[in-house]
Amino acid sequence: MIMKKFINYPENLTVELLEGLATAYPQKVKVVDPKIVVRATPKAEDKVAVITLGGSGHEPALSGFVGEGFLDASVVGDIFAAPNAVAVLAALKMFKRDAGILLVILNHAGDVMSANMAMKMAAREGIKVKSIMVSDDISAGLDAATEDRRGLAGSIPLCKVAGAAAEEGKSLDEVLEIAEKFNAGIATLAVAMTGCTHPQTGQPISELGDDEMEIGMGQHGEAGGSRSKILTAEETAKSMFGNLSAVLKLAEGDKIYVMMNGVGATTPMELAVVLKNVKECAAEIGVEVIGGMIDEILTVQEMAGFQMVICKICCETCQKYLYAKSNAPYWTSLGE
Amino acid sequence: MIMKKFINYPENLTVELLEGLATAYPQKVKVVDPKIVVRATPKAEDKVAVITLGGSGHEPALSGFVGEGFLDASVVGDIFAAPNAVAVLAALKMFKRDAGILLVILNHAGDVMSANMAMKMAAREGIKVKSIMVSDDISAGLDAATEDRRGLAGSIPLCKVAGAAAEEGKSLDEVLEIAEKFNAGIATLAVAMTGCTHPQTGQPISELGDDEMEIGMGQHGEAGGSRSKILTAEETAKSMFGNLSAVLKLAEGDKIYVMMNGVGATTPMELAVVLKNVKECAAEIGVEVIGGMIDEILTVQEMAGFQMVICKICCETCQKYLYAKSNAPYWTSLGE
Repeated sequence: MIMKKFINYPENLTVELLEGLATAYPQKVKVVDPKIVVRATPKAEDKVAVITLGGSGHEPALSGFVGEGFLDASVVGDIFAAPNAVAVLAALKMFKRDAGILLVILNHAGDVMSANMAMKMAAREGIKVKSIMVSDDISAGLDAATEDRRGLAGSIPLCKVAGAAAEEGKSLDEVLEIAEKFNAGIATLAVAMTGCTHPQTGQPISELGDDEMEIGMGQHGEAGGSRSKILTAEETAKSMFGNLSAVLKLAEGDKIYVMMNGVGATTPMELAVVLKNVKECAAEIGVEVIGGMIDEILTVQEMAGFQMVICKICCETCQKYLYAKSNAPYWTSLGE
Repeated sequence: MIMKKFINYPENLTVELLEGLATAYPQKVKVVDPKIVVRATPKAEDKVAVITLGGSGHEPALSGFVGEGFLDASVVGDIFAAPNAVAVLAALKMFKRDAGILLVILNHAGDVMSANMAMKMAAREGIKVKSIMVSDDISAGLDAATEDRRGLAGSIPLCKVAGAAAEEGKSLDEVLEIAEKFNAGIATLAVAMTGCTHPQTGQPISELGDDEMEIGMGQHGEAGGSRSKILTAEETAKSMFGNLSAVLKLAEGDKIYVMMNGVGATTPMELAVVLKNVKECAAEIGVEVIGGMIDEILTVQEMAGFQMVICKICCETCQKYLYAKSNAPYWTSLGE
C-alpha cells in the first residue's frame, strides 16, 4: 500500500521539515548546521541557555518551542531517532557561556546516551552544563521508579518554566532548582485509538482492532498499556485523570494546568470534550484547572489518540514562569 | 464499525467542546448563551466589533480565533451546520454600538442565509452592521465568479487584519475598506488524501482510493476537484502554488503570507515540507514568503490533507495589521 503522506525523499525529510518550519516563522527561529534550531534573536550571553534534544517526526515539538522565554535551541535527530552526541556537543559549544547551560533530556535510551556522552565531552572543554531528566509518563505503573518512566509531552511545560526562569536572569542552580520542583509535579498518560506509519519506511507502528483503544502507549506507539473497548470521552477522562491524580497525590485546593496533546488524527474538538470532563473530575475532588492547551504539540504521525499532561502548580513562582510571555511559535500563553 | 472518536452524547457535542475550549483558555475566551464565544475581556465600546459565524466540528476555528486584536465573537452552529439567524441576531444585539459591527461571512449557503436574515432583523432594531464575504476557495476554477467560491481557512487571516484595524480604532467604513482590500488577495486550495467521519452520525464523508489524492475538495470533503495518483510534496506544492499564483496574479517583487492548514491527520511535519517547496516555487518567480503558519487551524475531522492559503501582502497597512499583536488562543503572531 502506498503511504498517504506528503513527503519527498525520505532520507532528506528532517532537513526539509526544519527548513519549512523556519520559512513559516523567520522572525522567531532559524536552522543552523548540524540540524540545530535556534532563536532568530539570541538571548543575552549573561543568561542561562536552555537546550533540549530529540528525534524528529513529532512536530511541532521540540523545535516549535524554541523562542524567547523558552528554549534557546533544539538538537534534532532523524525521524524517531535521537541526535548523536556530536550534534549535541555542537549545540553545547555554540551556547558556551559563564552563566551555563541547562540541558533538558526526555527519558528515552538514545537521547539519554547522546546527552550523557555530549556532557562528558563538554566538561572536558570547560563548558558549564547541568541536566534535568523528564520522566512524566506514568504508564509503567503508579509505583514505577522514575528511571523507568519515559519522557513525553510534559517536557514542554517543563521547558517553559525553565526557559522563563532563565530569561529572567536566574543562575543555573536556581533555574535547575525551580525546574526540578516543577518537574516533580508533572504526570502524563497517553491513549491511542489507531496505530501510525513510519514516514521513512512506510511500515505500520502498532495496530489496534476496529473497536479497541489502549491507554498507556508510548511516544512511538509501543505497547505496554491496557487495551479496552472504546470508551466515551467521559470514561476516558475519568480513567486517565484518576491515575494521574493518584500519582500526583492531588488534593483539595490544588491547582493544575492541563495540556491535551493531540498526537495526530484526534481532533481539537475531541480534546476539548475530554478536557471539559477532566475539569469535572478535578472539581469533584476540589482541584481547580487554571488553564491549559488543546493542540497538536508532540505528535506521533497520523495516530489517533492523545497525551494528557497534568502539571500541579507547586508554587507562585512556577505559576508565574508558566504564565510568562514567550514568542515560541507553538506555545499558547495563559495570559496576554 | 464503531467510530474511533472521543465523544459523549453526539447531540451535546458542540456545547461540550465549547466548554472545553473555555476551560483551556479562561483568561482569553468565554462561552455565553446561545453558543456564542466572546473575549474574556471585552473590547472598548467605542471600537468596531468584528464577529463571525459558522458550524462546529472544524476546531480550533472559528472560536479559537476570538481574542484581542482579532474576533470579538464567534456564533457557533452545530457540527458542520450554520447557526440559525436568531443566534446571529443575539450576537449582533450583544455587540450593538455606535461604532458598528463588521460581520465576516464564509461563503456557504447556510451561513449566508442566517447572516442575511440576522442583518435584516438587526437593521430593524437600529443596529449598525456591515458585512464582508470570504470566498477564498479557488477550486471552482480560475475564472469562477466570486459568488461560486466557498469560504475556507482564508477567513482566519482576513479576520486577523479586520480585527487589528478595529482594535486600533478605525471606523467601520475604514475597517471594511482595509478588509476588502486584503480579502481580494487571499486564495486557498484544499487537497485530501483520505475521507473523514461525521462525528454525530458516524457516517463517512467522501472516500478516496488507497493510492488516490484529490486537489480541490471543499470544507466538508465535497468532491469537485481533480483526483490523481499520490504526488510528492514538491509536486503537490507546484500544482497548488501554480494555480493559486495564477489566480492572485503573483509577480516578481510580491510578498506573500502562507498558511498551511492541516485539516486533520496530516502532520505538521508534512505541512512544513510542503511549505519549504512552496518557498522554492515562489522564489522561482521572484516572490518572497514573509512567513506563515503551519498548524491545524480549520479542520475537517480526521481527514488527511490540508488547505494552502496564500495572502498577497497588498500594502504596508495590511502587513502591519497581520503582524499586530493578538492574544487569540490559536493565532501565531509573526513578530514578538
